Amino acid sequence: MISKSEKKAAQIRAARMMREAGIQINDSEVEEIEVVDFGLGQLDIEGVQVFTMVNTDRLAAKVLVLFPNQTEPEHWHLQVGDDPGKQETIRHIWGDLRFYVDGKDTMKEGFLVPGKHDVYSLRHEIVLESGDQLTFEPYEKHWFQGGSRGAVLYSFSTTVRDGLDGFSDTEIERLTIVEEKRDES
Amino acid sequence: MISKSEKKAAQIRAARMMREAGIQINDSEVEEIEVVDFGLGQLDIEGVQVFTMVNTDRLAAKVLVLFPNQTEPEHWHLQVGDDPGKQETIRHIWGDLRFYVDGKDTMKEGFLVPGKHDVYSLRHEIVLESGDQLTFEPYEKHWFQGGSRGAVLYSFSTTVRDGLDGFSDTEIERLTIVEEKRDES
Repeated sequence: MISKSEKKAAQIRAARMMREAGIQINDSEVEEIEVVDFGLGQLDIEGVQVFTMVNTDRLAAKVLVLFPNQTEPEHWHLQVGDDPGKQETIRHIWGDLRFYVDGKDTMKEGFLVPGKHDVYSLRHEIVLESGDQLTFEPYEKHWFQGGSRGAVLYSFSTTVRDGLDGFSDTEIERLTIVEEKRDES
Repeated sequence: MISKSEKKAAQIRAARMMREAGIQINDSEVEEIEVVDFGLGQLDIEGVQVFTMVNTDRLAAKVLVLFPNQTEPEHWHLQVGDDPGKQETIRHIWGDLRFYVDGKDTMKEGFLVPGKHDVYSLRHEIVLESGDQLTFEPYEKHWFQGGSRGAVLYSFSTTVRDGLDGFSDTEIERLTIVEEKRDES
């Protein structure tokens, strides 16, 4: 759960990073930025900010923002009914970004979220430069992390049903709850 | 048909405009920019430059560049076999951009390509600002034009099979031929 003020502050911060990275976002779109804490209640440590440019029944184009040292938890994209599952290509735009995928432990620049080693099973590190891309097929497990500057990246995919992703951390709830009571109360 | 040197110059010019618009493109990717003259042999008047970030069997994400006063000819996306046809969302990033779609003649900022009024049937003008988006369903006819600064825009779509688009101008060949002989010969 996050508070309304925490959500708003994260939207403004994400928009500022997007603009620094050269991504156009209109002022009216800033409040559409999704702030995701995965139900874990520690947004700055585990979370992601998502600006959806397009999401139709066939495809989605998004800009993801990671704050400095923020981690998107380990997950994979499931088959849903007739849909073979989300196919996703990410393209790094700006900042410090590392992905973790299946393979030999090469972790060097990144870090495991404290106290959560068991739900971050992948340790094969890929450090991305601007313009670098990775494609994930359905069920291909991955997690990623912003470095000291944080990161701004594109995510291009088939239709997104984030509510149906699989997560290694069973504590995760993909749909973020924003506290309804007033922050000042 | 375009010459090799014309293609290279257009790639460099397009990359410069992309970077000015804030889009990251690696030096090694510049030569992958597709320079499309639609077989009409007047690239600066009718043409488009296309940087493909992703094109899988399910989706495509591209950056399109229009030089100043360059026009992408009127076209539509056809059904192909089991595919219901390309669904495309464009998002304006930078520069001067107008689209022409079905509807009342409201043409004001743009112009019809000289001598080609019959193959540009649509006259309903939509002038886009940065961040504005339009979605085209299969078979929805459209054409677009860069203004005095030209334009840089995203195109997000289902799988692209440009060779199978329909064009109002029957002179058009979608696959650009690059002259093989040396330019200096």
